[in-house]
Amino acid sequence: MIITVLTDFGTADGYAAEVQGTLLRLAPGVVLAEVSHDIAPGDIAAGAYALGRAWSMYPEGTIHLAVVDPGVGTARRGLAVEAGGHWFVGPDNGLLEAALAVDGARSHALLVPPTASRTFHGRDVFAPAAAALARGEPGTVLGASLTDPVRAAQRAVQRAGGDLVGEVIHVDRFGTLITNLPEQQVARGAAVRIGVYDLVVRDTFGDVAPGELVAFFGSGGTLEIAVRDGRADTALGLSRRAEVRAAVRR
Amino acid sequence: MIITVLTDFGTADGYAAEVQGTLLRLAPGVVLAEVSHDIAPGDIAAGAYALGRAWSMYPEGTIHLAVVDPGVGTARRGLAVEAGGHWFVGPDNGLLEAALAVDGARSHALLVPPTASRTFHGRDVFAPAAAALARGEPGTVLGASLTDPVRAAQRAVQRAGGDLVGEVIHVDRFGTLITNLPEQQVARGAAVRIGVYDLVVRDTFGDVAPGELVAFFGSGGTLEIAVRDGRADTALGLSRRAEVRAAVRR
Amino acid sequence: MIITVLTDFGTADGYAAEVQGTLLRLAPGVVLAEVSHDIAPGDIAAGAYALGRAWSMYPEGTIHLAVVDPGVGTARRGLAVEAGGHWFVGPDNGLLEAALAVDGARSHALLVPPTASRTFHGRDVFAPAAAALARGEPGTVLGASLTDPVRAAQRAVQRAGGDLVGEVIHVDRFGTLITNLPEQQVARGAAVRIGVYDLVVRDTFGDVAPGELVAFFGSGGTLEIAVRDGRADTALGLSRRAEVRAAVRR
Repeated sequence: MIITVLTDFGTADGYAAEVQGTLLRLAPGVVLAEVSHDIAPGDIAAGAYALGRAWSMYPEGTIHLAVVDPGVGTARRGLAVEAGGHWFVGPDNGLLEAALAVDGARSHALLVPPTASRTFHGRDVFAPAAAALARGEPGTVLGASLTDPVRAAQRAVQRAGGDLVGEVIHVDRFGTLITNLPEQQVARGAAVRIGVYDLVVRDTFGDVAPGELVAFFGSGGTLEIAVRDGRADTALGLSRRAEVRAAVRR
Repeated sequence: MIITVLTDFGTADGYAAEVQGTLLRLAPGVVLAEVSHDIAPGDIAAGAYALGRAWSMYPEGTIHLAVVDPGVGTARRGLAVEAGGHWFVGPDNGLLEAALAVDGARSHALLVPPTASRTFHGRDVFAPAAAALARGEPGTVLGASLTDPVRAAQRAVQRAGGDLVGEVIHVDRFGTLITNLPEQQVARGAAVRIGVYDLVVRDTFGDVAPGELVAFFGSGGTLEIAVRDGRADTALGLSRRAEVRAAVRR
Repeated sequence: MIITVLTDFGTADGYAAEVQGTLLRLAPGVVLAEVSHDIAPGDIAAGAYALGRAWSMYPEGTIHLAVVDPGVGTARRGLAVEAGGHWFVGPDNGLLEAALAVDGARSHALLVPPTASRTFHGRDVFAPAAAALARGEPGTVLGASLTDPVRAAQRAVQRAGGDLVGEVIHVDRFGTLITNLPEQQVARGAAVRIGVYDLVVRDTFGDVAPGELVAFFGSGGTLEIAVRDGRADTALGLSRRAEVRAAVRR
């Protein structure tokens, strides 16, 4: 049984290790796989993006524990989602959007152990819940079905004339601007406009010279804008939420 | 058998991987669990804090390898501590304080293999010692009992009139100031003074508005000062060693 | 079976987890060991250095997956190297230099699955290849033998009179300057010149006072220059490629 772990804890404070130790103690023999502890503090959208890319690569039956939880210590609920043959456990704040978006996803409220701290649910609520799922004891941690889990605040892709209009949803470590325009809906060789820049969709980096801007369909299935051997974010002065347009596929 | 690893090596130089590979080579089948490689270089107190939080979450029998070792290449000794049903291995410089503070802890000097380098005891002394413990061969790496291990330099909590006086012992990734004032000794709803700021102990973040300062008993069992959805360290201009006072529990 | 993973992906984007999940999905039961995800983006030499230090510490039979791949999306080839009883998989750009330098190393081109993306070969080419090797199915991923793999661009150590002349090949997290002058070729107590500084080779940090410069043979087998309890890189204003000279051993 594999449990993946995604947090915004960093590792220097020991919090990530407390979660990890709790999983190993409460679910002996489980295999831990760290997705990340480097999500920017409190950045739910960034955590949701990373989890959304990664979860389906793991074997069916994997349990994904995710904790980016600026609302800990308030009334926000805990959440477990069964989706696509995987389990997801974390706060009910949009972080588990990728699971909620799967057809047939089922959401459950998490029970809060009476001994849980008020400020570290990663260790005291979510990790014990993930461990219980790993042990095959869901009944000990799952509460009522949840019909209204919090969904991610993401602008939908829209049509405007012959264009699709979307936005940059993530800027990666390499400065690449990743948009929400899906490959299937954008025309081959489409004209692309982002900020004040006009581009044409290419196949890959090798189609432009080093230092040049390139638009292409990325490995996540959406349109990306990069600079070959450079950074598009700084070259274009753009970041998350920047608008992007591309000609619709017909 | 689980071996946790805590270092200040980062991962970019390959040092952490040399330690990890040595453990996997010398103790086949062992399960590695990384506590952190991101302790600030040479910051023994920060390493001791993270290890102190995390160790007891792991199953009994776990071996904790910790290397924050600015004194490597000098006469400082190597140390193994048996405490609370766990083993701890690292330099004798206060890093293993959490183990030494356990009732009944037993300390041993580490033997130094004749082939060990002078500057990388993490790989050449501590990892082989942890691997030998994992293999059930303590006699090959443990030397004489140590009666005077180096203890951490931490100011004790003191009484001044009706106040407990302590200090900030750690600032975490979220900017929260973590003090050494224990929950059991501080009055409920106590008045707290830190720097020029006066607060009252609350239950948790949800008890104040976003952006406001809040004092509460944290998940490590001591008083913490935070800003809800913000950073207390920058808001207050305070860091490690800052004095804190709170009314004594009676 | 152990697979180590080294990338320049960081962990915040989910890319490293996509690679990791692919390995766990395609090679069930494999043990993952992370060398690093913190290699500076596109810094092939830094990745080669870390891998070069670490690989031989792991047990024989280990598979090392390494992805620092600024040339993805161009015509650069994929590479698998069998060397020293280990396997290495990654781009053919010098990253696997440590393996290529082993006597008897054998190089193979990697087959590219028809479904592979153009921009994420770590997930779509290299991870599946490493997983196939772990499953004992090399024939499904290895293409023709490669007789001309790309070698690292590293200045060879040269003789100039009674001196060996080399360079700084890596600056580590502690600011230590690591050179390519091998311990076996440098005289004991040799005079060393780096930048405008003159030193003498010592045994270790303990031979100088805190804050002083020290040259010694490091744990990687070459001459290093450090400042005890400080940083040599900032103290000397030197970085990678800086020239270093030391008296030849006779």
